[in-house]
Amino acid sequence: MSTPRIALAQINTCVGDIAGNGQLVVESVRRARDHGAVLVAFPEMTLTGYPVEDLALRESFQRAAARGVDDVAATLESQGLGDVTVVLGTLGVADDGRPTNRAVILKGGVVAATYDKHHLPNYGVFDEHRIFAAGTEPCVLDIADARIGLVICEDMWREGGPVADMGDIDALVVINGSPYEEGKGHVRAELAGRRARELNAPVAYVNLWGGQDDLVFDGHSFVVAPDGTTLASAPGFQDALLLWDVGAKPGPLAPAQDEDAQVYWACVTGLRDYVVKNGLTKVVLGLSGGIDSALAATMAADAIGGANVIGVSMPSRYSSDHSKDDAWELAGNLGADYRIQPIEPMVAAFDAELGLTGVAAENIQARVRGMIIMGLANSENAFALATGNKTELATGYSTMYGDAVGAFAPLKDLDKTRVWDLSRWRNAHATAHGETPPIPANSIDKPPSAELRPGQVDQDSLPPYALLDEVLDAYVEHAEGRAELLARGFDEAVVDRVLSLVDRAEWKRRQYPPGPKVTALAFGRDRRLPITSRWREKVEP
Amino acid sequence: MSTPRIALAQINTCVGDIAGNGQLVVESVRRARDHGAVLVAFPEMTLTGYPVEDLALRESFQRAAARGVDDVAATLESQGLGDVTVVLGTLGVADDGRPTNRAVILKGGVVAATYDKHHLPNYGVFDEHRIFAAGTEPCVLDIADARIGLVICEDMWREGGPVADMGDIDALVVINGSPYEEGKGHVRAELAGRRARELNAPVAYVNLWGGQDDLVFDGHSFVVAPDGTTLASAPGFQDALLLWDVGAKPGPLAPAQDEDAQVYWACVTGLRDYVVKNGLTKVVLGLSGGIDSALAATMAADAIGGANVIGVSMPSRYSSDHSKDDAWELAGNLGADYRIQPIEPMVAAFDAELGLTGVAAENIQARVRGMIIMGLANSENAFALATGNKTELATGYSTMYGDAVGAFAPLKDLDKTRVWDLSRWRNAHATAHGETPPIPANSIDKPPSAELRPGQVDQDSLPPYALLDEVLDAYVEHAEGRAELLARGFDEAVVDRVLSLVDRAEWKRRQYPPGPKVTALAFGRDRRLPITSRWREKVEP
Repeated sequence: MSTPRIALAQINTCVGDIAGNGQLVVESVRRARDHGAVLVAFPEMTLTGYPVEDLALRESFQRAAARGVDDVAATLESQGLGDVTVVLGTLGVADDGRPTNRAVILKGGVVAATYDKHHLPNYGVFDEHRIFAAGTEPCVLDIADARIGLVICEDMWREGGPVADMGDIDALVVINGSPYEEGKGHVRAELAGRRARELNAPVAYVNLWGGQDDLVFDGHSFVVAPDGTTLASAPGFQDALLLWDVGAKPGPLAPAQDEDAQVYWACVTGLRDYVVKNGLTKVVLGLSGGIDSALAATMAADAIGGANVIGVSMPSRYSSDHSKDDAWELAGNLGADYRIQPIEPMVAAFDAELGLTGVAAENIQARVRGMIIMGLANSENAFALATGNKTELATGYSTMYGDAVGAFAPLKDLDKTRVWDLSRWRNAHATAHGETPPIPANSIDKPPSAELRPGQVDQDSLPPYALLDEVLDAYVEHAEGRAELLARGFDEAVVDRVLSLVDRAEWKRRQYPPGPKVTALAFGRDRRLPITSRWREKVEP
Repeated sequence: MSTPRIALAQINTCVGDIAGNGQLVVESVRRARDHGAVLVAFPEMTLTGYPVEDLALRESFQRAAARGVDDVAATLESQGLGDVTVVLGTLGVADDGRPTNRAVILKGGVVAATYDKHHLPNYGVFDEHRIFAAGTEPCVLDIADARIGLVICEDMWREGGPVADMGDIDALVVINGSPYEEGKGHVRAELAGRRARELNAPVAYVNLWGGQDDLVFDGHSFVVAPDGTTLASAPGFQDALLLWDVGAKPGPLAPAQDEDAQVYWACVTGLRDYVVKNGLTKVVLGLSGGIDSALAATMAADAIGGANVIGVSMPSRYSSDHSKDDAWELAGNLGADYRIQPIEPMVAAFDAELGLTGVAAENIQARVRGMIIMGLANSENAFALATGNKTELATGYSTMYGDAVGAFAPLKDLDKTRVWDLSRWRNAHATAHGETPPIPANSIDKPPSAELRPGQVDQDSLPPYALLDEVLDAYVEHAEGRAELLARGFDEAVVDRVLSLVDRAEWKRRQYPPGPKVTALAFGRDRRLPITSRWREKVEP
């Protein structure tokens, strides 16, 4: 058997940018061919971007995708790259007119074969039964005497199906749009290894990378042998062209990143691509001196450069001096565009006119800050960032149209405990690279406070964060009921209070901006619950 | 053959309120039995409410539903109602542990039979593949010598399937949770008539009514004969117990409502149930003197009573006198709790501090109004209503965190043209009933204006509404592409402008409050598009 060289092109596509994605493909094929590859595989729905959601149902978009495939094939041929076999994801149309999640195999300037995804995920963040018809035919390519099987993403995850019907092959190529979540790398590797064992052939897994609204694709493409050995691997959250010769021994692998690093760069990637792919260059956010805004601003600086981050200190009469100092220090560390805008004159106008008290009055402060941020976003053509974390989202501990304003929420899927962990990780990362730790130690160490009244701290209204996050993890991510939570030993009053907060905050979550999913269950399309619901866990006997 | 009496119990359930829904069931069975019924059929997922979305996946909720069925069966038996056969929708669990959309047949205090929905809709607003396993067994009941087939909603819509396998039956009972949309009544009747012809047996269709977040169920239960004759029918948007003797001739039918009336009451139902089922009694909204806020306030008064509607006039230096007069007149007609809160002092404070100009400055006015509305909502425990219409949603012609604030948006699925039509309809309806038309003629007749700068009218920024709404209907509801729109004769510049506005406003729509779906395609879960997308129809050659 010959040992054809395969290239896995881990690229960052953009949804809807058929021309731009096509250009990325041509450039990658040229580089792969320069390195001797005879087969180049791209991620799932390369040409259209992924996921396209209901765009798949638009006939004009289907036609544009079909033209895009022809254009790429013709361009490859005209540029002398037509002898390379290219496996490209795109939007197809089945014989009955329904759209499919398709791979086209380009060779010699034409579409030599096609494959439609068999297994359509329709759980979690996926809605593929909604938009795609399922394929039924397998696909095996003959490349320089080697038989190479091809499937798309979910096809590999299901027992049986096209993988089981491949017969004798020399390698299986899987093209993927697999969103990042903490710990998923191990699951993928384990599963691909199992399939390799079943097939007695290596599995080459190429994954998309980049941010798309609330999803982040991490790349981390790899090749695994039937005995479970990783034969080749690409780093996460960056472009890569992973070369592998069918039948070759293990080569050098990409260095592994620990989970904190992965989660951090996932958030940065999601934030950067949201800004860049939507055509802006700047963000604006409030800097309270607290940990959430400090981490969000640091991520923003890592994503688009500190000079493109407008950080606004918006002190009130309740703001402590250290808060202002911490915000100022952070902005200096990041090289951010730092502004100070006291809220007192506007709050005084509202107070005089409306005369509100209690929570309604506290909300005025948060909403004046939201208006300042949005005013700057509008006048400076910047995206506003909401700095709420997952714990706040879960419990509704935020002011609608106040601190919740924004186009994107980079911390949305990080609970408070994780916000602290990542802040410490980011500072340690700086130290390890001989840089100044960006986040002031005081922002990490002090008790969190919304500073909406004198001496207020979060723990006046919420259980201690360590406990709260544990209960939330069990209730939200693991969908445990009240009975299970009590059986695990959590205090009854705490459980009832937390569950009630979560259930009542659904309407706030619905209006919250998108943010990068980094856990197994993020708020958003991962967890679809009615707003109007009288269901309370408490009614269980 | 005997002619057993069947009762179709058209009730308004609430999602998650298993005990409350169970009580409604027992009361309805008692009334049905008093009227001689031997079989009572309830709507789809009666006991749990519908749709329950991901609540279906919670084991604690599954257990509660199972207990709820046992409780209802036992209560019916203990109250001497056990001799009636009751067909009840609920959440089931299949042998493999996955949830199902189930009907249970109660008789003599126990579950005599079950039926799991075969066909799971996974398009439009439906996500049933996500949460349910499909049933495979048919269900035919023997009731007093009659053979009664039973299916659930979508099962009737698909060719073949359980309906085709029924054999000889005397009637088919279909239990439904079918959301209202304009014109759907005819589609249902036509389809049920076709199935009746195929079966050579009448079809008895019982539908849920009431609002659930962005869905409104209209009821309109009916029985149709094999020859297409309607044998019995219930009115829309209200409780009904529709009695029908198997084999009987047509009885008196519910009076038909025209589409304007149906759409109007659908919005009122959606609004009322959102408020009531979420436990509040009051709403607050801005009254600008314009047509949108006038119609929204009138709907609110019809939903929960004028005295529970807080209407706030928030004049600025740009507000015309007639605007204030129109708002005052409207509030008087509705008996609303009318307030006046000028925005000038707060706007002046923002102007002095931020010095914004152009759209950013205009947004300040809208956002100060939003803050006033939210301040009142917080302090008076009322839901804020957003008064935006579908045309505004489509084009992004609204200020985020300004006029877009609110818990619910009753006009969300009505385009501007429809807002005028319904306003005229509502006034004519009042006149026909000898009442004062609620909406001031001036609010209907004057050119729409946001009044954010001197002399501003909407048509400065947007094409004429009649044209705009036509283009939007073709592009959004019918998913036509640019090529199709131009082929239909629309002006190219208008088409490109409108399409660009729609595509760029997706992020605003994501943060908008829910509102009742009344058309075939509402913004929200009916139309799932990426925010980040470089797809533009314009790239088509």
